[in-house]
Amino acid sequence: MAKSPEEEHPVKTFGWAARDPSGHLSPFTFSRRVTGEEDVRFKVLYCGICHSDLHSIKSEWGSSNYPMVPGHEIVGEVTEVGSKVEKVKVGDKVGVGCMVGACHSCDSCANDLENYCPKLILTYNGIYYDGTITYGGYSDSMVANERYVVRIPDGMPLDSAAPLLCAGITVYSPLKYFGLGEPGKHIGIVGLGGLGHVAVKFAKALGSKVTVISTSPNKKAEALEHLGADSFLVSRDQDELQAAMGTFDGIIDTVSATHPIMPLLGLLKSHGKLIMVGAPYEPLEVPAFSLIIGRKTMAGSGIGGMKETQEMIDFAAKHNIKADIEVISMDYVNKAMERLEQADVRYRFVIDIGNTLAATKPSS
Amino acid sequence: MAKSPEEEHPVKTFGWAARDPSGHLSPFTFSRRVTGEEDVRFKVLYCGICHSDLHSIKSEWGSSNYPMVPGHEIVGEVTEVGSKVEKVKVGDKVGVGCMVGACHSCDSCANDLENYCPKLILTYNGIYYDGTITYGGYSDSMVANERYVVRIPDGMPLDSAAPLLCAGITVYSPLKYFGLGEPGKHIGIVGLGGLGHVAVKFAKALGSKVTVISTSPNKKAEALEHLGADSFLVSRDQDELQAAMGTFDGIIDTVSATHPIMPLLGLLKSHGKLIMVGAPYEPLEVPAFSLIIGRKTMAGSGIGGMKETQEMIDFAAKHNIKADIEVISMDYVNKAMERLEQADVRYRFVIDIGNTLAATKPSS
Repeated sequence: MAKSPEEEHPVKTFGWAARDPSGHLSPFTFSRRVTGEEDVRFKVLYCGICHSDLHSIKSEWGSSNYPMVPGHEIVGEVTEVGSKVEKVKVGDKVGVGCMVGACHSCDSCANDLENYCPKLILTYNGIYYDGTITYGGYSDSMVANERYVVRIPDGMPLDSAAPLLCAGITVYSPLKYFGLGEPGKHIGIVGLGGLGHVAVKFAKALGSKVTVISTSPNKKAEALEHLGADSFLVSRDQDELQAAMGTFDGIIDTVSATHPIMPLLGLLKSHGKLIMVGAPYEPLEVPAFSLIIGRKTMAGSGIGGMKETQEMIDFAAKHNIKADIEVISMDYVNKAMERLEQADVRYRFVIDIGNTLAATKPSS
Repeated sequence: MAKSPEEEHPVKTFGWAARDPSGHLSPFTFSRRVTGEEDVRFKVLYCGICHSDLHSIKSEWGSSNYPMVPGHEIVGEVTEVGSKVEKVKVGDKVGVGCMVGACHSCDSCANDLENYCPKLILTYNGIYYDGTITYGGYSDSMVANERYVVRIPDGMPLDSAAPLLCAGITVYSPLKYFGLGEPGKHIGIVGLGGLGHVAVKFAKALGSKVTVISTSPNKKAEALEHLGADSFLVSRDQDELQAAMGTFDGIIDTVSATHPIMPLLGLLKSHGKLIMVGAPYEPLEVPAFSLIIGRKTMAGSGIGGMKETQEMIDFAAKHNIKADIEVISMDYVNKAMERLEQADVRYRFVIDIGNTLAATKPSS
């Protein structure tokens, strides 16, 4: 019989877990492996709440294993390293994002694109090499192979860096790969949430002209004055939409609710690219003519490889890019999930694990 | 009042036209302009029948003007050139494809991509610079600005070259632009019709490994033995489909009937590209996840610019690439359209204009 989460590994660990598709989170004692020779062990200080945490704890994408400890925007301080670790030392600030393993033998892995490896191991709710379930960052400590550990540059605030490990790389990678984040390029960002708001910051820092495309006119001031976008387009306003047709080199679409795609393709110049990073559940309806006329591209992109994730964090530190966050205590997490469901956050909740998790530990 | 087609230009011309959405073609006397200083005038020898001719004469895409002289796969021999023409001389073999004009000032035109110019003028059923309707190649002579005239290399058979001016460039351009036609790449060609059969030949000549993807198992021998494809995949066979998942660098989809897209995306490797050159009328249903997982691209492509069309014809001549054709006489055209509607042709009808049009001229 399989051992219990508390006994399957030698190192006792404490966190919060969902137990069933209600998604309600509560204190949970489990265990992690000892520090292997290529492993980095760290005390978790902050963990961001990604929208996919909400989907996962409620099993909205299916395939959820319970108990589930979510969290894949994890930062902390190194407490132990294995004998072969070269990347970091005890005391360094580090992060772990969406993945903790892959096959390391396929083309994607060979090209530093572990995120596209068919055997990708997710940071939580995944099956690790040893057959045990992976647990995420809503917990007091973390251990990961150094390949999946990112160095957080000195002086970078750890709380606002956490969301970059998922939201940041998710938008940075397509901006680079599809040649959109460049001076002279006009880029649209659809949706101003956790992904969208950092997409604006990265695209601006990369030199693009940035237009936020949103259904909500009341986000205009925020987009222009606070986030530094160059312009704002209300996607429900047919006149605004018509006037902007054919003026975008690329669009990063961060919206995961079903929404019309054809108007976005219309906004692109010839040879323009629409990149989906949000994943609506319903299939998108795409008229072939709207791709053929103007040789337009529609593509998807999912997070990024570890090499590029490090590049993204270094770029963010250099350009002072931070996620806009609301720091919460561990015991607020269920309320935060409710608010997240109503999009009531600007723009990312980050749990102050280091200062608030221990207080939630049941006395034994 | 606008002048009649017969009187609006000085040069009397004879061809066949559709008069209404029945699509029935019959002899038609009209007129063309005198040879301008940048114009090339030529005697039409052959004209291919493209599937879009069928759509257009029946006004299935809307916006058809009658009388309509179809035909945009036109080859012939130069009879007169304007004073500024440098590209060809009297007696040269030339061709005209899908377009005869554009704005020549936009980014697309500046980059030899007239085919993506918003002011593109189609070879027939278009509005020329002088405001008159353009007439296609089902006619005894043609006149076009030299920019839109392709030189047919010496020794290239004219009849089988004609379809390359539309079908050839439509598949050659995306093979090149999207980096698919290269040694080491595995390319799928969906649909074995006018476009698909030349796509196989170009992809092979460019060095790719080619798999024909078709709903009809009975096309297998033809694809492998006659066209030289490396393998054949029956798209309705779930076992074959499953076994081939994730093995294609790119797919050129030539099918214009509505068909499922998700299985094709599944056939692609990570970072693979599905290029639509056929245009189903119904919107394609594209699950965002099937693009995001593996960073896959779906794009459209429409014919090609004039510089690339010349490159394609030169490449075809060098590699002995010919369309597989059935040469017909002018008075067979209505029967040919019926057969085309039933996909009863391998793979392109070409009208022998030079030898059979004159006999259909009403005695005056």
